[in-house]
This record gives sequence, structure tokens and C-alpha cells, in this order.
Amino acid sequence: MADEWKKEFEEERARRNDVVLGSGHLGIKRFFALDEQAYHTGALPAKVKELLGLTASLVLRCDACVSYHLIRCREEGVTRDEFYDAMNVALVAGGSIVIPHLRTAAERFESLIAP
Amino acid sequence: MADEWKKEFEEERARRNDVVLGSGHLGIKRFFALDEQAYHTGALPAKVKELLGLTASLVLRCDACVSYHLIRCREEGVTRDEFYDAMNVALVAGGSIVIPHLRTAAERFESLIAP
Amino acid sequence: MADEWKKEFEEERARRNDVVLGSGHLGIKRFFALDEQAYHTGALPAKVKELLGLTASLVLRCDACVSYHLIRCREEGVTRDEFYDAMNVALVAGGSIVIPHLRTAAERFESLIAP
Amino acid sequence: MADEWKKEFEEERARRNDVVLGSGHLGIKRFFALDEQAYHTGALPAKVKELLGLTASLVLRCDACVSYHLIRCREEGVTRDEFYDAMNVALVAGGSIVIPHLRTAAERFESLIAP
Amino acid sequence: MADEWKKEFEEERARRNDVVLGSGHLGIKRFFALDEQAYHTGALPAKVKELLGLTASLVLRCDACVSYHLIRCREEGVTRDEFYDAMNVALVAGGSIVIPHLRTAAERFESLIAP
Amino acid sequence: MADEWKKEFEEERARRNDVVLGSGHLGIKRFFALDEQAYHTGALPAKVKELLGLTASLVLRCDACVSYHLIRCREEGVTRDEFYDAMNVALVAGGSIVIPHLRTAAERFESLIAP
Repeated sequence: MADEWKKEFEEERARRNDVVLGSGHLGIKRFFALDEQAYHTGALPAKVKELLGLTASLVLRCDACVSYHLIRCREEGVTRDEFYDAMNVALVAGGSIVIPHLRTAAERFESLIAP
Repeated sequence: MADEWKKEFEEERARRNDVVLGSGHLGIKRFFALDEQAYHTGALPAKVKELLGLTASLVLRCDACVSYHLIRCREEGVTRDEFYDAMNVALVAGGSIVIPHLRTAAERFESLIAP
Repeated sequence: MADEWKKEFEEERARRNDVVLGSGHLGIKRFFALDEQAYHTGALPAKVKELLGLTASLVLRCDACVSYHLIRCREEGVTRDEFYDAMNVALVAGGSIVIPHLRTAAERFESLIAP
Repeated sequence: MADEWKKEFEEERARRNDVVLGSGHLGIKRFFALDEQAYHTGALPAKVKELLGLTASLVLRCDACVSYHLIRCREEGVTRDEFYDAMNVALVAGGSIVIPHLRTAAERFESLIAP
Repeated sequence: MADEWKKEFEEERARRNDVVLGSGHLGIKRFFALDEQAYHTGALPAKVKELLGLTASLVLRCDACVSYHLIRCREEGVTRDEFYDAMNVALVAGGSIVIPHLRTAAERFESLIAP
Repeated sequence: MADEWKKEFEEERARRNDVVLGSGHLGIKRFFALDEQAYHTGALPAKVKELLGLTASLVLRCDACVSYHLIRCREEGVTRDEFYDAMNVALVAGGSIVIPHLRTAAERFESLIAP
């Protein structure tokens, strides 16, 4: 497993966000800013917030959201054991319907920690 | 605001869980055990896991689940500022459709920390 | 546990359906007819279709829908063990987030089979 | 049918929003502002935006959101026939699982237009 | 950006609908007819109904549904500014979890209005 | 139509489940076991349970889950008419938003019964 998906994911995400923000719609622009700020360290550290975002993304079954928060979790130092512990909470809360997304999450997380 | 809802909530929850578990269905019984164990301290501390459960419950818009994890969050020492920081992540991720459940969460959390 | 909820549920459901259908909107009227016909015996017997409707209602977390299909399941002869076996599938597929609705389903089903 | 629910709904909503905004969390406060602004007349008139909000609320099955947008729809002059036409789109898109919420929507809309 | 996706999307959609309707199931056939009729001009014009369908599709996070209603919105004359105004309502109502689908919607809408 | 998707689907599913279970997380391992056992013949026969799983997967709009239960339904002897009768229940319950997944389900089921 390798992490070539990461570069492609990030480039596509950036390019497509540019299309959305290129609309110049003020409400959409402000929403994107709020979304980004929600994960900054505040009363809770960024690491915990990224785990919240990852868990919410899994129970809401959004692969792109899972992939984004996975990358951020690694940047914040989330370990392999912490990752699977969070995924277990999401699995029990969201049920077997989340398993296809858990598979993607596990494959991608493993690729990010592989030597 | 007072926390009289807490006693009523916990009693009703216990009584109704007894009905479900009274079925004697082994699969259901095992699921309930897995659900409880998912929030025990492991690689992640119980406090973080309860914040994950609370956030998942809010984005999935389940008042009973929110109420349960609120009580557990307080038992694990989640502060007022930490609570609202987690709720902000859930609000941005889940959108305005979660606001009615955020209102319930806020009212109930405030009642648990009132003197 | 008694089944006084059943009479109240059915009367309120009938009264409120009359409001919706009183609109005279042809599309809505036709949808209601399609919805009713979907559960008639066809290639699958009505009993299996009601179990499908009950399971779909639980994973989609709709108490009113669960209550309606519960009553129909009993009319089609679904036993207590069959009911809990279907509920176990819904619980595993939908996760702990369905538990509050499972509690309502269990209480109401028990009331329908009580002597 | 009368509209006494409207006053109670609006008072409870205002009181509970005060609890949420009383948190002083800047992200939450900004989200509430964005939510309100999204329905102001822009490229689309407020009336159409309220119909969008109402339809989104019905397919996402949120009674409180439905009730809020119903009131706003009436303030923007949505007629009975327009209301049911929008509800038909939501019913077909969201399926019979939205019917319990459609019942609430219809009852409440009728009460707002009753003499 | 070009709109080559449109031809491919429409051909695949037609071919796969033929498979479903080839079943000869009367209930399914009638549902497809109801779905089509729901967007015809009635009390609300087709343009507004397509905006309702587009917004519902975004908050329910269905790319194929979004793509279908995008094409219809353009046929009904929805402008770029109207499109983004509707998407902003969907974004605020549905939260950041809809952003991946908003990206697809924006890219495809831009391709439809490109010279 | 051919069923070459089946082999690819099953191999990818097995390989990716190995990644998830390779985590060694006990909670996740137990959840996977519970999920598998839920569909064993009990009070309800495996065939009915697979129809429940298929219907739940369609209303929850999970293509991978639909594909898995489709294969199992065929193994349990579900006929073409029974399949479409279950799909009709899911369509009416879940609305037009499930149609893209119904298309996949129909194409794949037809490929499994083709000579």
C-alpha cells in the first residue's frame, strides 16, 4: 500500500474547491471559512477535533470527508491504535452500513503510516 | 434550568433497555455489550470517546443518543467550552438541520453544570 | 404494558392522512396508493413485505413508520422470535443510533402480543 | 385546526436559541448568521428560497425545520397549491418515510391559512 | 471544462432505466411515472420545481440525482447566480458533508454554461 | 450483461476486510462476527434475512452493501420476481433518491441470473 492517492486527492480537492469559490458567492465563501476554523485548536486541541471530524465523516458515510480528515489526523499525530479506536466508535454507532467506508479509511490510513 | 430530565431519562432508558434485552436474543445482547465497550478507555481516553459519541449523535440527529453522551461527557469532566467546541464541529459538519438537536443538547448540558 | 397506544396511533394517523389527502393533490394521492399497494402479496407474501417495511423503518429511524409496520406484522402473524430476529438485522445494519427506536418497537410489539 | 402551535413554537425556538447563543462560541454565532442570510432575497427571491428550505427540511425529516420554513413560506405569500406542489416533490424524492413529517406540515400549513 | 459528461450520463441513465423498467414490475413503473410528473409545471413552475429537486438532491448527497436536476435546471433557464444561490441554501442546511457533492455540482454546472 | 463484477467485488471486499481486521482491534473484530451471524437462519430463514439486508442497504443507499446482499440473495434462491418486489418496497419507502442504487442493483441482479 502506498499513499499516491494523497497527492491526487489533495490536488483534485484544491482544483474543485477553486471552481466552487470561483462563483464569488459570499455565503459559500463564508461557509468554507467557518468550516476550516471549526478544526483550529480552541477549548479542544486540533487533534481531538480532527478525530471528531473523522468520526462524523464515517457515520455520515462520506469518503472524501473521511480522506481529508485522515490526512489531518496524521498531521496532528493520531496513532494507528487511536485511529482504530475512533473507527470502532463510528462502526458501533453507525452500523455495518459504514463498513465500505471503514475499508477505505483503513486502507488509506495504513498507507499514510507505512514506512 | 434544572436537571430533573436526567433522572427521568435514565430511568426510562433502563426500563426500556430491559424490554429489549428481555427478548433473550443473543445477537441483540451482544450488540449492546459491544456498544458499551466501545466507549471504555483504550488507545483513546473515555473522555475523547464520549466526545466522539456526542458528535456522532448530533450529526445523526438522535436526541436520546445526545442526551446519553451528554451525561457521560460530564462524568468524564468535559467542560462547557469543550462541549461547545465539539458542538461547533458537529454543526458545521451536519448543517442547520442539526440545530433543533443542538438546542436540546445545549439546554441539557447547561442544566448539568448549573450550581 | 398495554396496547392503548394502538387505537390512538391509528386514529391520529387516519385523521392526519385525511388532512394530507384533503389537499386534492393528484401526485400525493397517487403516491399514497402506490405506498399501500407495495405491501400487498405479490411474488413475496405480505408477511415478508411487512418485515421489509419494518426493517427499513428502523434503519431509517422513523417511529411512526415502525409503529405502523409493527401492527401490520402482527396482523400477518409475525411471531415474537421473528420480530426480534428482524430487529437484530436492523440493529447491526443501522448501528446503535437505532437503539432508541428499537426500544419503542420492542415495547409496542410486546404490548400487541400480551394476553 | 388553529395556529396556537405557532406562538408556542416561536417562543420556544427563541428561548432555546438564546441558550445556544449564550455560549458565546464565535463559530456557532457565525453559523447562525450565515443560516439566516442564506434565505434573504438574492439571485433567487426569498419566497423560492423558503420553498427550497421547506423541501430540504422535509426530505431530511426535521419537524422543527419544517415548521420554521412553513411560517416563513406563508409570510412570503406561498399559496396552498404551491405548498402542496413543493411537498409532492419532497414526497417523491424522499419516499414514504417522509409521510409522518408531511402530515405535520400539512396540518400546520392548513392552520396558517384557515380564516 | 467541457460537458462531455452530459452525453455519457444521459446515455447510461437511459440504458440503466431500461434495465429497471424491463422488470415489468407495475409498482416500479408507476413510481417512475410519478417521479417524472412531480416536476411538471403545476402551481409551481417547472424551473422552481427543478431547483427544489436539485436542492433536495444535494442535501441527500446523491451525485446522479444532482447531475440530472442540473441538466434540467439549465433547460429551464436557471442562471449561474440562481444556481449558486440555491446551492448555498443546500450547503447551510446540509453542512460541510455536502461539499464533495457541491464540488461535482459546480464543475458540471459550469461546463453546461461554458461557451 | 455478465457477472464479471462479482469476482472483482468479492476479491476486493476480502482484501480490504483483511486490512480492517489486520488492525487487531477486538471491538471491530467482534462487530464483523455479529454482522455475519445476524443473517444466519434463526427464527427467520436466511433467505428472508438477506432480503431484509438488501432492502435496508437500498434505502440507506449503499452500493457495496447492495452488491453483497444481492449475491447472497441469489445463493439463497431469491427469484427475479421476488427481487423486484423487495426493490419496489425499498423504492416506495426510500423515494426517488434510491433510484441510482436501484439501477446498480437491477443490472447486477440480472447479470447473476443470466444464462
